[in-house]
This record gives sequence, structure tokens and C-alpha cells, in this order.
Amino acid sequence: MIVCKFGGSSVANAQQIKKILNIINQEEQRKIVIVSAPGKRNSDDIKVTDLLIQLYDKVLLSEKYDNELNDILHRFESIENELGLTTSLTPLFKKQLLDFIQKYIKQPLRLLDAIKSSGEDFNAQLIAAYNNQNGIKTTYLSPKALNMIVSDEPGNAIINDDSFEKIYKVIQNIAGKIIIPGFFGVNEKGDRVTFSRGGSDITGAIISRSVHAEIYENFTDVSGIFAANPNIVENPASIHNLTYAEMRELSYAGFNVFHDEALMPLYKEGIPVNIKNTNDPDHPGTMITKSRASSGVVGVSCDSGFISINMTKYLMNREIGFTRKLLTILEDNHISYEHMPSGIDDISLIIRKNKFNDNLYELITEIKNQLNVDDISVEENIAILMIVGLGMKTQVGTANKATEAFRKNNINLKMINQGSSEISMMFGIDEADETKAVQAIYDAYFTA
Amino acid sequence: MIVCKFGGSSVANAQQIKKILNIINQEEQRKIVIVSAPGKRNSDDIKVTDLLIQLYDKVLLSEKYDNELNDILHRFESIENELGLTTSLTPLFKKQLLDFIQKYIKQPLRLLDAIKSSGEDFNAQLIAAYNNQNGIKTTYLSPKALNMIVSDEPGNAIINDDSFEKIYKVIQNIAGKIIIPGFFGVNEKGDRVTFSRGGSDITGAIISRSVHAEIYENFTDVSGIFAANPNIVENPASIHNLTYAEMRELSYAGFNVFHDEALMPLYKEGIPVNIKNTNDPDHPGTMITKSRASSGVVGVSCDSGFISINMTKYLMNREIGFTRKLLTILEDNHISYEHMPSGIDDISLIIRKNKFNDNLYELITEIKNQLNVDDISVEENIAILMIVGLGMKTQVGTANKATEAFRKNNINLKMINQGSSEISMMFGIDEADETKAVQAIYDAYFTA
Repeated sequence: MIVCKFGGSSVANAQQIKKILNIINQEEQRKIVIVSAPGKRNSDDIKVTDLLIQLYDKVLLSEKYDNELNDILHRFESIENELGLTTSLTPLFKKQLLDFIQKYIKQPLRLLDAIKSSGEDFNAQLIAAYNNQNGIKTTYLSPKALNMIVSDEPGNAIINDDSFEKIYKVIQNIAGKIIIPGFFGVNEKGDRVTFSRGGSDITGAIISRSVHAEIYENFTDVSGIFAANPNIVENPASIHNLTYAEMRELSYAGFNVFHDEALMPLYKEGIPVNIKNTNDPDHPGTMITKSRASSGVVGVSCDSGFISINMTKYLMNREIGFTRKLLTILEDNHISYEHMPSGIDDISLIIRKNKFNDNLYELITEIKNQLNVDDISVEENIAILMIVGLGMKTQVGTANKATEAFRKNNINLKMINQGSSEISMMFGIDEADETKAVQAIYDAYFTA
Repeated sequence: MIVCKFGGSSVANAQQIKKILNIINQEEQRKIVIVSAPGKRNSDDIKVTDLLIQLYDKVLLSEKYDNELNDILHRFESIENELGLTTSLTPLFKKQLLDFIQKYIKQPLRLLDAIKSSGEDFNAQLIAAYNNQNGIKTTYLSPKALNMIVSDEPGNAIINDDSFEKIYKVIQNIAGKIIIPGFFGVNEKGDRVTFSRGGSDITGAIISRSVHAEIYENFTDVSGIFAANPNIVENPASIHNLTYAEMRELSYAGFNVFHDEALMPLYKEGIPVNIKNTNDPDHPGTMITKSRASSGVVGVSCDSGFISINMTKYLMNREIGFTRKLLTILEDNHISYEHMPSGIDDISLIIRKNKFNDNLYELITEIKNQLNVDDISVEENIAILMIVGLGMKTQVGTANKATEAFRKNNINLKMINQGSSEISMMFGIDEADETKAVQAIYDAYFTA
């Protein structure tokens, strides 16, 4: 069984919805479909989820919300009209929203979760209705009907361990296609609770794990994951196959194909993920698996906005507990770090600059006073470039290829970290060199 | 004022003692001299300190110790005879040792410290007497006479903070040369307490700091610090000038010129250290300073016997406190690590293999159980190679020069850590490649 998930741009209008139904209907194995709320139809458009949040804001301020409500309903109406749906669902959608407003008016977080998840929910109902109208047996299943019970943390729900089995039992007995709205589950009482960001992928992963899917197909508007950022490198190759671990290393620095935390249930079950393009469904896209046979560099990614806090203390490496104390100071300040390269008498913390709210220099002072370092300095405007691929550690000359490319392009290396991960090399460069560096590395590994 | 310290080989016999007195007497500034116990005169010889420990062992076992006592006294007698000392000090030395045995017979640790420090003490007295006989006013000063009060931890004494000022007051009033035995101080009651390994250097550093020396001259049997291990590289260049920090990075991996912990008081005061050769005193040797003007690679060092414990856990970098917990496990097991490179979902601990007494696999199990890692593996037979020099971080192509040399010599790089320290690059290689790698790097940076 294949579980398919379609992102917002794949279900933004009638034309896109016809495409996804073609994809689903042509393949018997594609039984279960998770859909997002309609996304932007063009760059000036507003996503349905944002329209829903505008409605919520008005309700909360006790202002008139007719316009906001109508905007939402019109959006679905226009999809229905373009599809030629014989029975409009819009009156039902209107009633549903008004019911939520009445029911949860004194519970703002419940109201928010109920309203903002309606984009996925209405879209799932509409798509199921249209597919049935075309003669293909299709069932809309709400998370409530699925027994998809989650923890009661609005905006950050976690699936209950015993939900997987319950979901499987519901789905087992249903013939034909199944359409499920992404982004939310229900608490024990049946109230909607949404997942964190990447919510539809979390639904997709939960369903895939429940039904022990052969493949989880993640449809977006690009043909898989590119070996380098297409905004920097012209027409980069797309990656045919990469492992979960490789994807983690790539997604870390500037790759935002989808939410990697959502993959956890898939990773645990070893279910492969296929990233595909709704607009080019015959393209094989990128397959993400637990392991892969061939080895070699699969991609380069780069992200800016890092700072490095560099500390020096004579005889640091003899001081037992130094690093632990340093990490405790960080934890007490709720600051997470990305890397912590250390030398004999030196240690550096590589941290995303946005982790600080004007408290960087307080942290510096605290470290200085508590750890009695000889010297502490901050280096800003650092970009982190990752070269990712299995089998790097055992190939002579892999690092040399990269350092050679940097040298030829006159790029100074502030940091190199190779070997902690078997499958990546990390380089710290100046933010100003980011574009030049990505192009240079891409050329060295992918066009030579 | 210059403080000179001479190691064991520099004061092993009459010929060497004459050399050091020439060095001292030809330069007015060289007022204070710290001496070691007589070292080996040839490779089959026994150091006086080892003879003293043999004596101590016999005493402790309540066995006859006449032979051991005589061996020690004969050694000093032969030095006196060769020097042509008119009044022998040996009867005094004999009485001193017998007094210690009587006084501390019920206090084995005090007895050990008193006996094993006598090599330095007798040698200082003997050298002072000989220089006086030659008409140069010379005073032997015992640590007791110097008020060199230390903590009462036999074999691991620490200088009291107020001793520096007291020592300065004693020395201030003495004209001519001063000879001080290295390796020990006295507790508040006047009992001898020895320093840890590198003890004579600790004495030298304490005295230098007390008198605010211009230079601390450390005389050994090599002309300074070499840029690479002379057992690997034929006739390596010696380093003219390096900083304390550079020396730390070099001494870490296989350089054992002298004990860097001993340098702490000098480092704090910014007193330069000059490593010189007793057998070639006109050679400028190596000057160790707090900073230096020129920059560039100064040396390469390499040490084997490391293992790497590699851990992988999906989403590790999102898990707050992971590294702190890992370090707490290490601390609880009293295991110190050398490096801890980390990736997104990976972390490695580089540890000297000799830190473990058959408890490596217990530690692995503890980490596995407590931190729930997906995968943990141990890589053995790792050598760490360091390339050291100021200004590396800002030079384009520094890393490339190294990786190029490794590639050309078919050396696989298991690890690279550059940038945590401004002044070094660390490479992890297979122990089998150690010799080839040191030669390759030396050739790349020092002969090209």
C-alpha cells in the first residue's frame, strides 16, 4: 500500500486537484491520500490557512467577521465551480465554522486549532466528493473517524502510542480510495488538536506507519531534492536516492523540502519516502531510504546566520568538567548550539544568531566569569557549508577535492569538521562567500 | 635577571658540570641556577634518582641497604674527584640520608620525598662548592632557606600563593650566583615535599616568577624544539620562536621537551622561556613567548594510541542536554577525552586508549543504555597529527596544502578539525600512516 501526501500548491485549485486525482486513480496501490489546505495559486495569493487565521483574529477581537468568512467560503466555492461539483459542500463548511466559533468562544486555543485545521478538512471532503462524482469509490476520513488520538497540546500534538493500531483497524475495512486531512488529530474528548509545523507530513508519517506502507509518497512542486540550491546553481541535478541520515545533514543547512522531525515514525519503521512532483509525476523524484547501495557525494547545502563564540584557556584540556560546565550555562540560558569544535586549549560554539534576543553579551560575560577563560571572542557572519554523502570517510582525497575548490576560488576556510559524521564534511566560511562556495563545490563534485 | 635550569643530562658528570658553570659564569645576568639530579652518563647508566628509589625500597623492606647507599655516595664521590673538589661533601650526604631514614622511618611518604629529592639537593651543594672553589661567589639555597612553602601533598606539592614574595626577599639580599635544587619545596613544618613530574621545571618557573626574571633559560641536550620529530624526519629545522599556545598544541601530540603544566606561572607573568642546549650554548635555541610577530606554520607533531567512540542518533541535535549527559557519564567514569567532534546526528569522542583499564565496553554499554543512541561503534589505532602555527585561520589554502600532501601520499583522513583553534589543524589518520604523514607534512610546509 502506498500513502500519498500532497502539499498546499498541489491542491491549490481545480486544475491541481484534477492532477492529483489522476495520479491517485491511475495506480491501485495509491489507496490513502493526505491533503493539505489549498495553498497559493500565484505569488500574490493568500493561503486558505492564512484566511482562516484572519477569521480567528476577528472572532477573538469580537469584531464583525463576515468578510473573512466569505473569503474562505468563496475560495472553496470557486474550486467547486471549476471542478463542476454537482452538490456544493460550502453550506456545510459555513455551518462547521460557525459551530466551532460558538462551541469554543471561551477557549481561544481550541478555537484556533479547530479553525486553522479546517482548510485541510474542507479540502479533503471536497476532493473525496469530486472523486466519488467521477465514479471512483472514495471515502473521506476525519482524524476523529480514524481514532487518531493525540496528546492535548494545541499546536504541538504528539500521537498516542496505541493510535497506530486503532487507525489500522479503521482503514483495513474500507474499500476504494481514502482521503484524510493533514495537520491535526483529536484528543480523547474528540476536540481537534494540531501538530507543530510540517503538520501534514506528521499525519502522512503516522498513517504510513499505521498501515505499514510500502512507500510514503510526498508530492510537492519540485522533482525531488536537488544536489544544490537551485537559486545558486543553475539546473542542479536531482538526487535519485539518499538515506535518512544524508537527508538530515542536507536539511540542516538550507534545504527545506520537508520537516525532518515528521519523518521519525517512518525512520523507525524503515518506510521509504519518495519526494515527487505533482506537475511531473513520471519523474522518479528522490527516494529516501534507510540505506543505499552506491556511495559518493549526493549533495551540497549551505546556510548563513551563524556566529562562533571562541574561548581560550591555558591548560583547558586538563580541566575536568570544563565542557560540561559550559554546556550547563548554555542550557540554563535555553540556547542550543550547532557545533562545538574543540582544540587543546580552545573551544568554539557555533550557534545560530537567531537563538539570541540581545542576550549574547550577557552569555559571554557569564562564561567569562564562571569559567575563567583567558580569552573569549565572537565571530559573526559565518555560513556553514555541508558536503554530504555515504562513504566519505574511507575515500582518500575527498577532503582534498573540496579544499582545492575553495583555494582556487580564493575562499578562506574558517572551520573544517570532517569525521565526526561518516557521511558529511562541514566547512565554515564567510557569509559573503556563500554563493561562490556552493557553486565551486557543486562544480567540483557534480560536473567534473 | 636570568633564571637557568639544567636537566639531568646537563649535570650528569664533572665534564657536564664544568660546561654549565661556564655558561653561568660568562654571563652576569645568569644569577640563579636550578639543577636536577645527575642523569644518565650513557644509555646503560642509572639515574641518581633511581638509585635513591632503590635505597628507599630496601629501607622500606627492612633489608640491608649498604650497597644501595654506597652506590649513591660513590656516584657523587666520582664527580667530586673528577672536578678536583678539595673538600668532599660525601660524608655530609651520607649523614643526611641516614638522618632521613631515622627521622621518617614510620612515615613512608615523607621518607620517599626526602630521599628521592636528595639527588637534586646534593648536586646543588656540590656545584655551589666547586664554583666557590674556583673563586666565584656562589650560594647554595635549599627550598627551606628560600621559604619555598608548598602544600603538604607528597609527590604533588603546589606552591603557596604567598611564597613568591618571600622567595624574592631572600634572593634580593644575596650577591653572586645562587644554586637551587629543583623538584621540591617544604611544608609549613619544614619537611620536604616533592612536585609532580617535571618537578625541576616547576621549581624553575616558581623562582622565575618570584624574581620577575627577564628570561627563564631551560637547558637540555637538544638545540631547542624541532619543527618535527627527529626520529621521523632527518635533520628537522629547529623553531626559533613560538608562543606558549603553539607549544601547548605541539606538546600535546608527541613532543616532550618539557612539562607544560610547569609553565603556568611563567605564562601568567609573560616571562619568556628559552630552550637551549648545554652542549651547544651559542645556538639560539627556541624562544617561547606570549606572542610573536611573524606568523606561519611552526611545526608538526603526531601521536598514536587514540580511539574514537562514534555515536549516531536520529535528531540528536534537537535533543537538549545530550552532550552534557554524555560528558557526565565520562566524568563519572573518570575518563577524560581529547576531542569531541560533533555533526548533526553524530558525535565522536577521541580518547587516549590508555585511559581505559578494560572498562571500554562497560562505558559503551552505559552510553548505549542511558542515551539511547541508534548506533555506537569504536574505531581503534588512530593517530592524531597536528599542524601548528599562528595565523592559519586567515590564510587561504593552508588546509589545501595539507590535504594535498595527504592525498599525494595516499593517506586517508579519518578526521579533520580546523578552526576551533586559531593556531592549529588537527587530522586523524591510521596509526600505520604516522611516519609517512609526518614526513609528507614536513616536506610540504618546511622544504617547499
